[in-house]
Amino acid sequence: MAVGDVTMPQMHVVQGVKIGSAEAYVRYPNRRDLVVFEFAEGTNVAGVFTQNAFCAAPVHICKAHLAENNPRYLVINTGNANAGTGPTGMQNAKTTCTSLAELTHVSASEILPFSTGVIGEQLPMDRLLKGLQPALDTLNSNAWVDAAKGIMTTDTLPKGASEQFELDGVTYTMTGISKGAGMIRPNMATMLGFIATDVPISRPLVQQLLKTSVEQSFNRITIDGDTSTNDSCIFAATGQAGGVEIASEDDSRYAVVLEVLSCVMKRLAQLIVRDGEGATKFMTVAVEGGANTQECCDIAYSIAHSPLVKTAFFASDPNWGRILAAIGYAGVPNLDVEKIQVWLDNVQICKDGGAAADYTEEAGAKVMAQSEITIRVDLGRGQAKDTVYTCDLSYDYVKINADYRS
Amino acid sequence: MAVGDVTMPQMHVVQGVKIGSAEAYVRYPNRRDLVVFEFAEGTNVAGVFTQNAFCAAPVHICKAHLAENNPRYLVINTGNANAGTGPTGMQNAKTTCTSLAELTHVSASEILPFSTGVIGEQLPMDRLLKGLQPALDTLNSNAWVDAAKGIMTTDTLPKGASEQFELDGVTYTMTGISKGAGMIRPNMATMLGFIATDVPISRPLVQQLLKTSVEQSFNRITIDGDTSTNDSCIFAATGQAGGVEIASEDDSRYAVVLEVLSCVMKRLAQLIVRDGEGATKFMTVAVEGGANTQECCDIAYSIAHSPLVKTAFFASDPNWGRILAAIGYAGVPNLDVEKIQVWLDNVQICKDGGAAADYTEEAGAKVMAQSEITIRVDLGRGQAKDTVYTCDLSYDYVKINADYRS
Repeated sequence: MAVGDVTMPQMHVVQGVKIGSAEAYVRYPNRRDLVVFEFAEGTNVAGVFTQNAFCAAPVHICKAHLAENNPRYLVINTGNANAGTGPTGMQNAKTTCTSLAELTHVSASEILPFSTGVIGEQLPMDRLLKGLQPALDTLNSNAWVDAAKGIMTTDTLPKGASEQFELDGVTYTMTGISKGAGMIRPNMATMLGFIATDVPISRPLVQQLLKTSVEQSFNRITIDGDTSTNDSCIFAATGQAGGVEIASEDDSRYAVVLEVLSCVMKRLAQLIVRDGEGATKFMTVAVEGGANTQECCDIAYSIAHSPLVKTAFFASDPNWGRILAAIGYAGVPNLDVEKIQVWLDNVQICKDGGAAADYTEEAGAKVMAQSEITIRVDLGRGQAKDTVYTCDLSYDYVKINADYRS
Repeated sequence: MAVGDVTMPQMHVVQGVKIGSAEAYVRYPNRRDLVVFEFAEGTNVAGVFTQNAFCAAPVHICKAHLAENNPRYLVINTGNANAGTGPTGMQNAKTTCTSLAELTHVSASEILPFSTGVIGEQLPMDRLLKGLQPALDTLNSNAWVDAAKGIMTTDTLPKGASEQFELDGVTYTMTGISKGAGMIRPNMATMLGFIATDVPISRPLVQQLLKTSVEQSFNRITIDGDTSTNDSCIFAATGQAGGVEIASEDDSRYAVVLEVLSCVMKRLAQLIVRDGEGATKFMTVAVEGGANTQECCDIAYSIAHSPLVKTAFFASDPNWGRILAAIGYAGVPNLDVEKIQVWLDNVQICKDGGAAADYTEEAGAKVMAQSEITIRVDLGRGQAKDTVYTCDLSYDYVKINADYRS
């Protein structure tokens, strides 16, 4: 059961983007598991990828192709991650690109491949390749919801965000989808995220917008601390809604686009946490008063990854000692515990490193009964702050991950 | 249910050590929850403690008293950790020492206090102090099993190890107990461990023996990655079995004592993992071929902490892709995945970074069905190696930690 508002909004059409999908039976029959994006000529595309040393074959290919060309097509399969698959896996990712390139009359380096699912098994290439033409046959501009469904693995719901906004009298659209519910501690990117806009933006700025937005969105969520081998996030600007290309940060429209993109990406990232495997609570861990951003993040992640904190939240138990312990072992040097304040929403549980005098279990229990809770920590030693989003650890997390392959 | 052989051995008497216990009703009625150790005059004592910045009040007092004096008494309560308790908590730990000092006619600085249990609540001082005399009244040399029971929290069984050995014709004893089942990723020490021998050893060497032994025992186990606020491990050498004091590493008896101590401490540490909260499997994660010990440990802990690896082991699922992913995100720089080999016991699952050609699911499943499994990783880039012990993540881990305070 996902936590809070997870409704799919109206997914506005992005001019210059068409999406097709097919049932290729990569792993399971009778589901759309192969998705193709087509971008209009002239679209500028950027990507960020996992930093896992064991990154999947398609991630290697994506990086190489992005360095060479501006992609015209994305091809995404679910059910199999094509990771830990050695030279055969690399060849399969390449073959997927060359096969789609033949069908679409572009160069193979204009195609980016993505895979998500079980690690360590080879792709069923026969079935996958047979699905390419059927996917192309369904290409249309109004298929974002189908795409969101087509890339799901253990997700319980498709994830989308869409905004419309005006710049110099022109109405533009920013629409995106994401997937992921476990093996989530993105590092440079998410599980999978695909966002497109029809604003005209130069390629270097497309990259810069993506890098900036990913930091405070996909790079600030964690479910289980497991950084995936396949995390990839793509941002495409088709320019098909017209207007002059944004080619400089000084263009006043840049800040507006950044804000809309950040908003869409934060929503897509938070949707992944809200749909976290077995999640019953959505937790915002906000650390302020740090000497630098890194230590704020270290402490926020220490809290967000602690199995003891996560199980206490699952139990709605205001066991704030576990939060203190997680702060204490985050490895931040010279932490003065007597300057530390901790709140659950607006209830102060820890004052100057000890129990807050006016704290009551009743007040704590009331906050813990909510499905959305903010843990706020003030380190009292500087101006830096940062925020991480996570969920609790429930029976169902264990159940889902103990059953996943069966 | 604890994993494997967890039987309490015959706990040999250590000459010069007496143990008493009482039911003080610190948290629960009708259980021994207060334990007192008495060491003969001349005993040399050393301690190692948690590195959690939020370390508990008794840890502060222990460090101060050890710097001042050689302890004659240890006083340990379970049910309440006296951590996150501010100045009142410090005062309570001190009062415990002064009260016991009055009853035993020693200086307060000759007493070390220990607490374990719930964090963030004040000790019930009335009841605790009233338990001191009854505990002293039961002091006797043959009470190690009572002590092991008296320090349990969520442990399902008391943990002990005991060895007898001969040096220059004298028979000596090394006996110890430990406790802990959750919030376990010791850093410098364990949850609680108390080991004593009747060998005569100089105080500096007692400290050195403890520091050396703790590294490969209590500092190499993890259940949930949560470093406790209270981890403490004490080693005492009473010298009461006679013989000349060991005062130099060059004394040939030093190596023998180190070996016996390491053996006892490794057993006590592994017992904590075998009794890990909800554990159904005991996992040895051995990383070799590293450029240095640190990177071997980083990768071993990354595997040992991964919720996805731990749930796969709970499910007896040879989902080795999750092991590769955990190796990949351990943050080891310039890891060449094509040099990496991974085995489950003697079954090679990953060869040169990809699936081993002759690996079969059947072979993997056969190993995974066992209750004790070694994950062996060869990084292929050096001679360093290290080993970490952990357990799987089951429904019961969540249940125990969601219910702990209720």
